[in-house]
Amino acid sequence: MKLLRVGPAGAERPALLDEDGTIRDLSALVPDIDGALLADPSALDRIRAAVGARILPALDPSGLRSGPPVTRIGKIVGVGLNYRGLAAETRSVIPAEPVLFLKAADTVTGPDDTVLIPWGSEKTDWEVELGVVIGRTARRLESEKAAMRVVAGYLAANDVSEREYQFDRGGAWVKGKNYETFTPLGPWLATADEVPDPQDLRLRLWVNGELKQDGTTADQIFPVGELIRYVSSFMTLYPGDVILTGTPAGVALAHAEPKPYLRAGDVVELEIEGLGRQRQVVKEC
Amino acid sequence: MKLLRVGPAGAERPALLDEDGTIRDLSALVPDIDGALLADPSALDRIRAAVGARILPALDPSGLRSGPPVTRIGKIVGVGLNYRGLAAETRSVIPAEPVLFLKAADTVTGPDDTVLIPWGSEKTDWEVELGVVIGRTARRLESEKAAMRVVAGYLAANDVSEREYQFDRGGAWVKGKNYETFTPLGPWLATADEVPDPQDLRLRLWVNGELKQDGTTADQIFPVGELIRYVSSFMTLYPGDVILTGTPAGVALAHAEPKPYLRAGDVVELEIEGLGRQRQVVKEC
Repeated sequence: MKLLRVGPAGAERPALLDEDGTIRDLSALVPDIDGALLADPSALDRIRAAVGARILPALDPSGLRSGPPVTRIGKIVGVGLNYRGLAAETRSVIPAEPVLFLKAADTVTGPDDTVLIPWGSEKTDWEVELGVVIGRTARRLESEKAAMRVVAGYLAANDVSEREYQFDRGGAWVKGKNYETFTPLGPWLATADEVPDPQDLRLRLWVNGELKQDGTTADQIFPVGELIRYVSSFMTLYPGDVILTGTPAGVALAHAEPKPYLRAGDVVELEIEGLGRQRQVVKEC
Repeated sequence: MKLLRVGPAGAERPALLDEDGTIRDLSALVPDIDGALLADPSALDRIRAAVGARILPALDPSGLRSGPPVTRIGKIVGVGLNYRGLAAETRSVIPAEPVLFLKAADTVTGPDDTVLIPWGSEKTDWEVELGVVIGRTARRLESEKAAMRVVAGYLAANDVSEREYQFDRGGAWVKGKNYETFTPLGPWLATADEVPDPQDLRLRLWVNGELKQDGTTADQIFPVGELIRYVSSFMTLYPGDVILTGTPAGVALAHAEPKPYLRAGDVVELEIEGLGRQRQVVKEC
């Protein structure tokens, strides 16, 4: 199933994108799409049954905003340098174990919402990423196989990053990863059964129509299951947590000078196979 | 006022510690102690009026558990190396600007709850810290003075840290800061008016009765107002967010070998002037 949340920011309702491309209202069936829902097989079965029975009312898509497809996200774990192509183009050593950082859940926006450049900063960059949404509490998982069983689903993400803040201001990457609006998610959450092989997804990103990133999750150094297993040895994962699994080659940072960092008015679009498309207009604030 | 939350984990009720040391029930007055309450001057006035009118029912303190004094915390921003004494004893260079990291809100526990050592790990350390709770949304604050106006109050914290995970596993400190139970908070949140000078508070921590840390916030490299101002330039602060302002000298990391890291059965106690006392039994899990 493709689950989404539509409506004004802060007042989204749960919805479903059906096989015909019709958006259907779930608000009579479930309160919202969050960790509690994703951890509740009976609620998901209820949605499936309603889809099968063709009883879900259609929503008029015109002018309908998509919000982030999951709400009440607990934590967002980012993974750095997880694509061979990115490591090569940034001349980084392939990490021996995953590089982790945290993004605050309050940085999340809808897939087509405005992205803000921190006022006066110069190096805001894009990163198309496969996001994994957790559906079951996970502590110290013992295998990739066990790890895959805690996946509720997948979504597209832009892990927006300010590179001066990330690398040149002392301390951890956190400073460059947590500006307001720096984590557009969606448009939908595809439940795990919709993604037969998360290591075979094409990811692309355009800036002002020009293709900048064109990668595949087959290029990931640590695959999804291994990342989840690894993270669960350092912190407990809860339903509604999100892991952003890294970005492929093609970020502004890796370009020759002058690097093409984002400027007010730029349009970023990204797409992941089966997970839909985002479009953000960049603004300075 | 000293605000607290008492009762079983996950089912705490809001309460107040009055000037006589009596715990009084606030649950008829406010739903809980969270960012929404702290951002609402009328709700705080309602509590003040009820205290003045002496109409709040007393709670029996025997066997009453203290939970974390604020719930629905959005994000926790940690500050590293913010005491001159700690920088000296760890032979670290005084940072030119604050070192920041994030802790997930799901690491928060009550002041006297069990602290878990990650199973099989060797280097779990203690850190007594002054925590600041935010009461107003804050973006790009322009001065320390403006920053002090967004403070809702202060609380005691133990920023538990696993040093091998923090320093020796590649990437940022996040790996050593986010194990379940790694952020005991409380026992109470003292509203800002209760703390006339946050740069003049004594902080102490004992392990098995032996004094390990004995510092003062006067030793902070970046004072509270400067930290808040600085953080707000990289990320928006919201009511209910917490900033942990660093730990003074005396952590296990700084001891000669063999360093006295925590072991199952150890008892950690800590106290900050005016902010109460914590006591945690350490368990391996």
